[in-house]
Amino acid sequence: MTFAANTINVQSSRLPFGAQYDGRFKGKHILSVSQFDVHDLAYIFDVAEEFRMLVRRIGVMDLLKGYILANLFYEPSTRTSSSFIAAMQRLGGTVIPINEVRYSSVSKGESLPDTVRTLECYADVIVLRHPEVGSAALAAQYARKPIINAGDGIGEHPTQALLDLFTILQERGRIDGLTVTMLGDLKYGRTVHSLAKLLALFRVRLIYVSPKALEMPAELVDALRARGVCQESHTQLEEVLPETDVLYVTRIQQERFADQQEYEQLKDVYSITPQVLRAAKPDLTLMHPLPRLSEISMAVDSDPRAAYFRQMEYGLYVRMALLALVLGKA
Amino acid sequence: MTFAANTINVQSSRLPFGAQYDGRFKGKHILSVSQFDVHDLAYIFDVAEEFRMLVRRIGVMDLLKGYILANLFYEPSTRTSSSFIAAMQRLGGTVIPINEVRYSSVSKGESLPDTVRTLECYADVIVLRHPEVGSAALAAQYARKPIINAGDGIGEHPTQALLDLFTILQERGRIDGLTVTMLGDLKYGRTVHSLAKLLALFRVRLIYVSPKALEMPAELVDALRARGVCQESHTQLEEVLPETDVLYVTRIQQERFADQQEYEQLKDVYSITPQVLRAAKPDLTLMHPLPRLSEISMAVDSDPRAAYFRQMEYGLYVRMALLALVLGKA
Amino acid sequence: MTFAANTINVQSSRLPFGAQYDGRFKGKHILSVSQFDVHDLAYIFDVAEEFRMLVRRIGVMDLLKGYILANLFYEPSTRTSSSFIAAMQRLGGTVIPINEVRYSSVSKGESLPDTVRTLECYADVIVLRHPEVGSAALAAQYARKPIINAGDGIGEHPTQALLDLFTILQERGRIDGLTVTMLGDLKYGRTVHSLAKLLALFRVRLIYVSPKALEMPAELVDALRARGVCQESHTQLEEVLPETDVLYVTRIQQERFADQQEYEQLKDVYSITPQVLRAAKPDLTLMHPLPRLSEISMAVDSDPRAAYFRQMEYGLYVRMALLALVLGKA
Repeated sequence: MTFAANTINVQSSRLPFGAQYDGRFKGKHILSVSQFDVHDLAYIFDVAEEFRMLVRRIGVMDLLKGYILANLFYEPSTRTSSSFIAAMQRLGGTVIPINEVRYSSVSKGESLPDTVRTLECYADVIVLRHPEVGSAALAAQYARKPIINAGDGIGEHPTQALLDLFTILQERGRIDGLTVTMLGDLKYGRTVHSLAKLLALFRVRLIYVSPKALEMPAELVDALRARGVCQESHTQLEEVLPETDVLYVTRIQQERFADQQEYEQLKDVYSITPQVLRAAKPDLTLMHPLPRLSEISMAVDSDPRAAYFRQMEYGLYVRMALLALVLGKA
Repeated sequence: MTFAANTINVQSSRLPFGAQYDGRFKGKHILSVSQFDVHDLAYIFDVAEEFRMLVRRIGVMDLLKGYILANLFYEPSTRTSSSFIAAMQRLGGTVIPINEVRYSSVSKGESLPDTVRTLECYADVIVLRHPEVGSAALAAQYARKPIINAGDGIGEHPTQALLDLFTILQERGRIDGLTVTMLGDLKYGRTVHSLAKLLALFRVRLIYVSPKALEMPAELVDALRARGVCQESHTQLEEVLPETDVLYVTRIQQERFADQQEYEQLKDVYSITPQVLRAAKPDLTLMHPLPRLSEISMAVDSDPRAAYFRQMEYGLYVRMALLALVLGKA
Repeated sequence: MTFAANTINVQSSRLPFGAQYDGRFKGKHILSVSQFDVHDLAYIFDVAEEFRMLVRRIGVMDLLKGYILANLFYEPSTRTSSSFIAAMQRLGGTVIPINEVRYSSVSKGESLPDTVRTLECYADVIVLRHPEVGSAALAAQYARKPIINAGDGIGEHPTQALLDLFTILQERGRIDGLTVTMLGDLKYGRTVHSLAKLLALFRVRLIYVSPKALEMPAELVDALRARGVCQESHTQLEEVLPETDVLYVTRIQQERFADQQEYEQLKDVYSITPQVLRAAKPDLTLMHPLPRLSEISMAVDSDPRAAYFRQMEYGLYVRMALLALVLGKA
């Protein structure tokens, strides 16, 4: 972790990562946050920042003209799916949208490797969303074209974690030195697991706030401790909110509770309202992977600290960067 | 209504509306027919007519190159959805097609405002079809990008009404002075309600033909009367067909009837056949919003007075015009 | 059949069919394999081979820029649907993807002719997949724009048969003189029926291997015999594998069997494994329309004789050729 200190640090509007374009992701799969070191992140975010500025200035590029993305979603995800489609189109590429897989060849029992080997006859890159853990890695084992994991069950969702980190970097100008508080269901939420792993590459303090039953898994806490990450666990947000720089809220899902009364009570306790935010720093960065239900009140949306819609937009640029990089065109 | 007289009048192949491009719809939402006055209509139809000629001559334009449409359909509508996709593509733009909303974030309970605020991170304009009345207005309240209402339940479907009016203008060369007869289910049909409101801006005679149980709602009739529109109600088409210039047929839906025998009987009474059309004017314009079942016999399709497939095509140009106008690129 | 001898024969990397571009498919429908003679096939494959080389060299063309394909799938087929989308996009055209037909206007009872006449207002060519035999021919009867049949129930699937034949030609360099063995469910498989009809235009030997209950239909065998095709029927693959040049495997579907034990037994008997292939020619071409289950072991995939994924890719070029030809742009 020490090597990462201050590596990523915004000093001007242009990210001065000084990364050299070396084609390091060309033809590679994007499967897990574990595959990235701090230099990879700098490289990806540098490209993402360039695309952010280009989209704002000119809207769309011809960088991936002639390239085709197969957007293969075995389970629906309007948000992630739309984000990748837009990312490809803003780079001038085109998309084969595949949302009906449950009814088609897969429902006839075709194996994922066969589907992937078919689609790579037509497309240049495959984005895969699949309900089963390990499916992206399995697909990558057979694919000649790059696979980007867009979520495999409770496994990985690396592009979400990358966009979360890019959001923090964009909103705060740096990662090192921040106190990041994660709130809600920390046991089952793959989003917070992946983000915590990425944050562990930097000098941050991680605070976990959750009901006892939904605490961050011990193995993950142990693994991060072994890397020297400073971590704390709490059950009450008020104890840590005043010192929090980034508050990452996740949803507590009703189906996790046998006792519905317990759920109703917790739901309210962990709900962010304008009232709650009075105790927060004036420059807090409030994030959420969306969709959100009552865990962040809509009354908070107009607060400048609410970063969750900007977070969606940053996701576009990160996904543009990943597509361009694996196709060797950044 | 008097102000509208002869404002829209085709004298040559080029619509000489004399509208000045003033960017009046740039960044605006298209939510309801009530938002348009006669000058707006002239403006939209002028652009639609230009696109009609351009599509016939060159097929596709680069006007919206680099622009992305999020085509957000919460309920299926092959016709409307395909029409907007084609409209965007013929203008050189691209589309994020979203038809799976029922299974995805919305089914997890996400609010429409959140979905819209997410999609506007990726797209430049959003077309929304939603089963609930008022949904488009709700979306527009939160959106920074233009929303085009493609139907919100039994509420509004303004682009359908605009294409209907554009069809009449194209087929007849004028609106004023026409006798327009609406046939079928006038109680529940949002199509005829919206079209009647638009026609009320002109000097027309409206004739309603329907079973007693499916008459035009009294409030709408009263509102149009207050604007001075000449209206009549009948139950038999034969009484008014000979004097009809435009016959707008709608479907009578079986599920509206408790007594199935009554339905079967009415279904036949209001069915347009070659035999029925013998009593019509030789230059009648026969319209239908489609899909149609038995209310217009397929034997009528080859009659040059059958305008319903041309009506579909006019819809393409009207939707192209709306997309270009709200994006400020007409 | 004699006239076909050696007409299609690869002598160099460029197919020297010597076909003259005469616009013969411009504006035409592609409905059935029966519509093609040997010269048509040479013409289509010549264009397909050109596109194959162009895609390898430059990825995408602008040949169909400004053209729109309505990809109308009444039943899901990820493979065929994706293939047509990619084909259109690689030619520079755009696609209206329609996969939701079962929920929309058709589910309201709209007739296929109306749907087709609506879509041709928006698109330049329509690819149709429909569960009912004869649907493509019905659609073509009403359409002013070209219809390409992408499968109508147990009826026709002409683009599959064309890509199968193109695969044989590409892999073997010729059609005449080959021994083609078809294995599996020959009774219900439309794929083998269509391919057999196309192969009957050439000087080939056809061997059928299937359980007695799933033999090639007698009418088809009789029709091919009348054209002078040399045909044999077997129940054991081992009897004919050593002399087979092209082995076309199809799936035996469980639901065809009343006796599940019989199915389990047959499933294994007709399964292709590395062990089975030891008895095959070293230059065998092993094909399968995909999706495959256990009828070809995944252990065979790395065998260079396994041509089924290359077969998928050839499908792209054949479909590109068909789209370009019916639009008069080859």
